[in-house]
Amino acid sequence: MSALQFTAQVLTLFPDMFPGMLGHSLAGKGLSEGKWALKTLDIRDFSSDKHRSVDDTPAGGGPGMVMRADILGKAIDAARADAGPEWPLVYMSPRGRTFDQKEAERWQAAGGVTILCGRFEGVDERVLEARGVEEISVGDFVLSGGEPAAQVMLDAVVRLLPGIMGAAETLHEESFGCGLLEYPHYTRPQVWEDREIPEVLLSGHHKRIAEWRRKKSEELTRIRRPDLWSTYVQGKNEKE
Amino acid sequence: MSALQFTAQVLTLFPDMFPGMLGHSLAGKGLSEGKWALKTLDIRDFSSDKHRSVDDTPAGGGPGMVMRADILGKAIDAARADAGPEWPLVYMSPRGRTFDQKEAERWQAAGGVTILCGRFEGVDERVLEARGVEEISVGDFVLSGGEPAAQVMLDAVVRLLPGIMGAAETLHEESFGCGLLEYPHYTRPQVWEDREIPEVLLSGHHKRIAEWRRKKSEELTRIRRPDLWSTYVQGKNEKE
Repeated sequence: MSALQFTAQVLTLFPDMFPGMLGHSLAGKGLSEGKWALKTLDIRDFSSDKHRSVDDTPAGGGPGMVMRADILGKAIDAARADAGPEWPLVYMSPRGRTFDQKEAERWQAAGGVTILCGRFEGVDERVLEARGVEEISVGDFVLSGGEPAAQVMLDAVVRLLPGIMGAAETLHEESFGCGLLEYPHYTRPQVWEDREIPEVLLSGHHKRIAEWRRKKSEELTRIRRPDLWSTYVQGKNEKE
Repeated sequence: MSALQFTAQVLTLFPDMFPGMLGHSLAGKGLSEGKWALKTLDIRDFSSDKHRSVDDTPAGGGPGMVMRADILGKAIDAARADAGPEWPLVYMSPRGRTFDQKEAERWQAAGGVTILCGRFEGVDERVLEARGVEEISVGDFVLSGGEPAAQVMLDAVVRLLPGIMGAAETLHEESFGCGLLEYPHYTRPQVWEDREIPEVLLSGHHKRIAEWRRKKSEELTRIRRPDLWSTYVQGKNEKE
C-alpha cells in the first residue's frame, strides 16, 4: 500500500459516472493502489421528500430547473466535515475562473478538493455565497453537467502525484511549465512517406538539438498562442 | 429508433475508457437510442510487431516515448475510410487551438469527428503534417492522455444534438451564446439561512426581471472575464 496523497470528494446527482475514465490507466492504477481516493456523495441523499427531489423552478421565471440551496447546503456541510482544512471547495461552472496548470498544482498541494457538480439550469446563488464556494470553469463551452469537467480536472491533478507517472510518460515540463508550447517530436522510422526526421535531431550534437527545440517552441508559441507568447517575452525581459 | 445524427471515431490506446461518462445520463441515453454513435479504434491493432508496440524513443534524445508516424498513419487512414467528408480530423494536444462553444457547434454541424488521442510524450510530427490533422486543446493544463479531453469535448457536442436535452435542461443560451456569463439563479425556499431571494424576482414584473438579469450578467462578465467583456462591448458598439 502507498500512502494516500490526495482525496477528491464529488457531490453529484450521478455517482455512477465515477470513477469513469479515472478508473483506467495511470489514474486508475493510482486509485487501486491507494495513492489517491475518490468519494462520491449523492446529492439526492440530502433531499427530505420521498421523491428525493433536489430542484425547483427558477424564481422570476425562465426555462430549466435550479438546484436548491437548502439541499446543497446540507450536502456541502456533510462533505466538509470530512475535508482537510486546506482543500478547495469548488463548483463546476462556465461562469468560473478558468482551470489551468497552476490551479491543478494548487489542488494537488492542498491534498484534496471538494467538487460540486451541477446539472439543469444551475444552482441557487445563495449556497455559493453562504459556503464561500469558488466557481471554476474548464473552458468556454457548455457541458451537460459538472461531472465531465470534474473528471478532466482530476486527471490533470492526479498525474502530478508522486509515483503516478511511469517511465514512458513525463511530466511534460515543456508544456506551460516554462510558458512555451512543446516542440515537435519525431521517432523511427527515419524516413516515412518520403518525410525525413530533421537532420539536426540525428546529429548527436546536444547543444544544437536543444537550440533547435527551443527555437521551434518559441516559433509555435508566437504563431499559435500570442497570449502565452507575450507573457513569456515579458517574463524574459524582466529577468534580464 | 432515432436517426443517427453524429458519429465520433476515437483512436486510442485505451478503448476500454469509452464510453466512460458518455455512457451515462443524457449522452448515454442518446447513445443507446442511436441518436449518436461512438466507434473506438485500438491503435495497437495497427502495429505490425508481435508486442503490438506503437512507440519509440524520441529522435534527438530526451525523456518519454513518441508514437510512431507509420502506425498512426495506418490507423488514421482506416478511420477516414469510414468518415464523412466534412468530419474534422483532430489530435488532442496542449499545443492546439483551444476548444470552445464555436468548435463544438462546428463538429455537430459536420455530423461527425475523428479524434486521435495521444499518450506518452507525443506523436511523430510527420503524421500530423501528412494527414492534415488539426490540433485542438481542451485548456492550458496537461492531462495523462487525450482521452479525458475527448470525452469532455464530445459531451459538449452531443448535448447540442436535437432531442438530447430534456425539459429540465436548457441549451444555456445565456452562457457564451450571447457573449455574456449567466446571471445568478434562485429557487425556493424564499428565505434560507436568513438569505432572501432578490425582491425583483418575486415581483412578477417581466420587464424588470429581464433588466435585472441582463445587468447581473453584464456585471459578472465585466468583473470576471474582461476578455469576454471587451469582445461583447465591441460587438454592441458595432451594431449601434
